[in-house]
Amino acid sequence: MKKILILGAGRSSFYLISYLSGNAVKYGWEIIIGDKDQKNLRGLEGMERVRFISLDIVNGEELRGRIESAEVVISMLPAFMHSGVAKLCLELGRHLLTASYVSEEMGLMDGEVRKKGLLFLNECGLDPGIDHASAMAIIDDVKSLGGVVSGFYSYCGGLVGTESDDNPWKYKFSWNPRNVVLAGQATAHYLERGKVKYIPYNRIFLETRELEIEGYGKFEAYPNRDSLSYRVPYQIGSVKNLLRGTLRRTGYGRAWNIFVRLGWTDDSFVIENTFGILYSDLLEAFLPVGSGSLEDRVLRFMGGDAGKGEIEKLKWLGVLDGEVIRLERGSPAFLLQDLLERKWVLGSEDRDLILMQHILEIEGGGEKNIPNKIISTLALEGEDARHTAMAKTVGLPLAIVAKNLMLGEIKLRGVRIPIEKEIYIPLLEELKTCGIVFKEQKFYDDKK
Amino acid sequence: MKKILILGAGRSSFYLISYLSGNAVKYGWEIIIGDKDQKNLRGLEGMERVRFISLDIVNGEELRGRIESAEVVISMLPAFMHSGVAKLCLELGRHLLTASYVSEEMGLMDGEVRKKGLLFLNECGLDPGIDHASAMAIIDDVKSLGGVVSGFYSYCGGLVGTESDDNPWKYKFSWNPRNVVLAGQATAHYLERGKVKYIPYNRIFLETRELEIEGYGKFEAYPNRDSLSYRVPYQIGSVKNLLRGTLRRTGYGRAWNIFVRLGWTDDSFVIENTFGILYSDLLEAFLPVGSGSLEDRVLRFMGGDAGKGEIEKLKWLGVLDGEVIRLERGSPAFLLQDLLERKWVLGSEDRDLILMQHILEIEGGGEKNIPNKIISTLALEGEDARHTAMAKTVGLPLAIVAKNLMLGEIKLRGVRIPIEKEIYIPLLEELKTCGIVFKEQKFYDDKK
Repeated sequence: MKKILILGAGRSSFYLISYLSGNAVKYGWEIIIGDKDQKNLRGLEGMERVRFISLDIVNGEELRGRIESAEVVISMLPAFMHSGVAKLCLELGRHLLTASYVSEEMGLMDGEVRKKGLLFLNECGLDPGIDHASAMAIIDDVKSLGGVVSGFYSYCGGLVGTESDDNPWKYKFSWNPRNVVLAGQATAHYLERGKVKYIPYNRIFLETRELEIEGYGKFEAYPNRDSLSYRVPYQIGSVKNLLRGTLRRTGYGRAWNIFVRLGWTDDSFVIENTFGILYSDLLEAFLPVGSGSLEDRVLRFMGGDAGKGEIEKLKWLGVLDGEVIRLERGSPAFLLQDLLERKWVLGSEDRDLILMQHILEIEGGGEKNIPNKIISTLALEGEDARHTAMAKTVGLPLAIVAKNLMLGEIKLRGVRIPIEKEIYIPLLEELKTCGIVFKEQKFYDDKK
Repeated sequence: MKKILILGAGRSSFYLISYLSGNAVKYGWEIIIGDKDQKNLRGLEGMERVRFISLDIVNGEELRGRIESAEVVISMLPAFMHSGVAKLCLELGRHLLTASYVSEEMGLMDGEVRKKGLLFLNECGLDPGIDHASAMAIIDDVKSLGGVVSGFYSYCGGLVGTESDDNPWKYKFSWNPRNVVLAGQATAHYLERGKVKYIPYNRIFLETRELEIEGYGKFEAYPNRDSLSYRVPYQIGSVKNLLRGTLRRTGYGRAWNIFVRLGWTDDSFVIENTFGILYSDLLEAFLPVGSGSLEDRVLRFMGGDAGKGEIEKLKWLGVLDGEVIRLERGSPAFLLQDLLERKWVLGSEDRDLILMQHILEIEGGGEKNIPNKIISTLALEGEDARHTAMAKTVGLPLAIVAKNLMLGEIKLRGVRIPIEKEIYIPLLEELKTCGIVFKEQKFYDDKK
């Protein structure tokens, strides 16, 4: 029986596995899910043709055997573990799919992977993943019309649905909290009016861009670490504006910047003996000595960069009083994360919200039926805390590509990302049938 | 003939070698200096009983032979190379001296080093080095009088002498430029009024302390990364204020903070194709888009945190116009360093200035002839760009301890720093004869 091996079953597994389970029934496959932690498997019971095994990937021999018996391997493990899995897949001649960025090590395997007739498809989740596929579809479309992409902005956010949006931060975790706490720490690069621009960490949450998304209201975006590296793979060499950014509700950045300036997002050193201490004591330790209430001191400390709205957000988190540290020790970032995981938790009935928007500026547009601007937007709400839009949009691209690969419908080989027509056309088509649909607006003769 | 091996001959070698040369003549020793780069040896010719050899420490066999033939090894190599040298010294049973902080790896060798009857003395330069020795002398003195140290502040700066102080930054390099450019990037910890305080990078150059040093005027200090770790070795467990800081002339931090906020001190990514570009273009790339002159935009960008004085400093460096990048590629920090190395160069006749000041607050003082405050200050000017106060104060402690060790006058063993009487008493005595003298002021009945 042909097998798909899924390594690691986390938050995003439900849709990945249920989709593959359905196809396994249809095509007579078996889905093997290997995870060290059995509690990750809750809610996944009763799916047909799915077998769970306890697998510690540190056990190289067992992992080898599991990989060898599968046709396609999907790694949902933390990114740093992919290269070990990739080496085994290469040795044993198995295809590999991940939702993570192509690491340097992975990239260097390209020649060998091709030689062996394999596909190692990375960046095949939501962001990166659906962003690549949907962007390439528009870019290729513009080119076929004779237009030249001169500006490309792409924004994505894992947010919270309007009805579940009930805290002043207007944010809850639907994805890895650690990534949220450490976001922005590398200097961001992007292209503006033909010139490279840089924004370092100390101001990335202040210098955000405003954005309005029809039907959803106002947002702000901070630029991702490296927008420039997509100029070549997207084949938009003439682009003058190029920015990929992360969406948050307006006001999030200004408040988060307080943590940045305080030093609470530092993950490079550990504070000992923190159990039972108040977060307000930790705040005291990071604030300059001064008189007045903590609230007044935070405002004074931030100069003009914080006001009532930001204080309200801090108060709601309990950092000005009340909340106690539960950890024995931790970096400032880790202590902050532990608080946020209590506060920004998606309630069991909460619906998360995925928003993605591409904005293309087109040269040679406005005439000959070529638009001079295209806005393409994906908005998807989840069902509840288990069946999130995040899990759906991360898991389904992997699942669909795995199925197409099993059926022999993908001939592409090498270390890749989903920017090739052979991948993205059937992928986007099938995502539509799952309710993941971009709404495209084209503008003509727009006054520039 | 008994030998001392010196690995690496850099800026700080002159006094180290000339002192040891004199003692080698007196006691019939030989000084072997191994360096990969022969140009480091310029200005050291003609010293008696000194032999220069070309030595690449990557060549393990040659290094092993050289270490084996010496009694004492002094490593002036970059800090990360010390552990390799230390392992060989341990294996071959040779004493080792360095001016670098004790790394974790070095610290773990302590048991083995003692077993072999060896001394691995680290932190034996200026800062760390003379600071430890001189601080311990005062602390032990206070204790012997029955006082308890309740506050300890220690400041040190490698600066430029008054007559050579001819640029608006009031700073020139007398030590590793890279360390100056990357300074402050780890969150600083210190103790204030009995509580641990933290200052992260984004505000370390703004929240400096003011200091006046008699005869030299006003300075500011930013706290070093870790002041707390010296509470135990200094045996000042009751201390309520504990801070070690770096001295600069007043105004330096506020101007340097512009580079921090711009992102110009980031060493984590490389900008390509920079040759021939103006530094003002690089500034443009890091400034938010806006109108007006670069000068106006920098002022606006910095909000209230920069004014005329800071602009004057930028202008003098040529970053607002004029100066061209000479490097093909580099991190922002590296590109900045290359400019500063042109600008902050010590002219051949320039005299550098070492300032070190300890301030002790003492409980149980003010009566019984116990002072309640002690200020101990070292001020030393260099002779010229080759014979710097920096080279003297870094090199002589190593040289003196090496000599005492060769003469069998030091029985201390293990991985150590110069905080033991057996080391610091003869060291400070002999430093005095070399003109390195602390001036001590004691205050009684000071209104607290």
